[in-house]
Amino acid sequence: MNHTVMNPSCLFCKIIQKEIPSTAVYESDDVYAFLDIHPVHPGHTLVVPKQHCEGVLTCDPAVLSEVARAAKHVAHAVTSGLGVSGFNLIQNEGAVAGQVIPHLHIHVIPRVQGDGLTHWPGTPYPNPEAMTAVAEKIRGAF
Amino acid sequence: MNHTVMNPSCLFCKIIQKEIPSTAVYESDDVYAFLDIHPVHPGHTLVVPKQHCEGVLTCDPAVLSEVARAAKHVAHAVTSGLGVSGFNLIQNEGAVAGQVIPHLHIHVIPRVQGDGLTHWPGTPYPNPEAMTAVAEKIRGAF
Repeated sequence: MNHTVMNPSCLFCKIIQKEIPSTAVYESDDVYAFLDIHPVHPGHTLVVPKQHCEGVLTCDPAVLSEVARAAKHVAHAVTSGLGVSGFNLIQNEGAVAGQVIPHLHIHVIPRVQGDGLTHWPGTPYPNPEAMTAVAEKIRGAF
Repeated sequence: MNHTVMNPSCLFCKIIQKEIPSTAVYESDDVYAFLDIHPVHPGHTLVVPKQHCEGVLTCDPAVLSEVARAAKHVAHAVTSGLGVSGFNLIQNEGAVAGQVIPHLHIHVIPRVQGDGLTHWPGTPYPNPEAMTAVAEKIRGAF
């Protein structure tokens, strides 16, 4: 894997290269993981590939596999190290989805009972035809 | 990869085996993806491994890689098929984290401007020592 793909204007590339300090929790040849400085919950960690890509859609599949495997390792350490029983893995793709830094990152957010964090509500489709129509649009785009 | 690992009491295993109907958008040897029946936004899709595992921590790494790669394919089709510019990938591990069905699934949630969905707020650590102490707990758990 080529780790030299860096974007000189990217904050996370600078963090990976240690030009900007961060609090590391894990590092491998392919992945770097460090504490978010504005955690949703203490221990909130960001898992990033060393090879620069903006998001999942533009990420090399081999890099994406390594990021997913690293997220598992990090999530295990976060939960056992902090003694919590669950976590969320969240990836935001695009500014419209809440992505702030355009370098792929997976949020590992520890969760505890009573933390007050709520999830987005779902709404059923108005009828089966509406659901089928949406599925056909998606299936037609592979 | 062994796809025969099914849990007979698992809702998603029954969906994968077509014992319970669903609206599929993608299927491969390893992964099945179908519309969430209570979507946060129309097109909200669940990507699940065919091999049963409760979550990321108990998932075979090879399975996890395939799920991540499939999530990329599905996210591409969701965004291009529905004409949206972003999405969230979300995985909830454990009931405390909002997981309802104990079979690993990644939510692919299309996002559009003005959809009103907000993200959990972050809070800085009270001081650098507090941040370092959390990192040391996590680093000690690998």
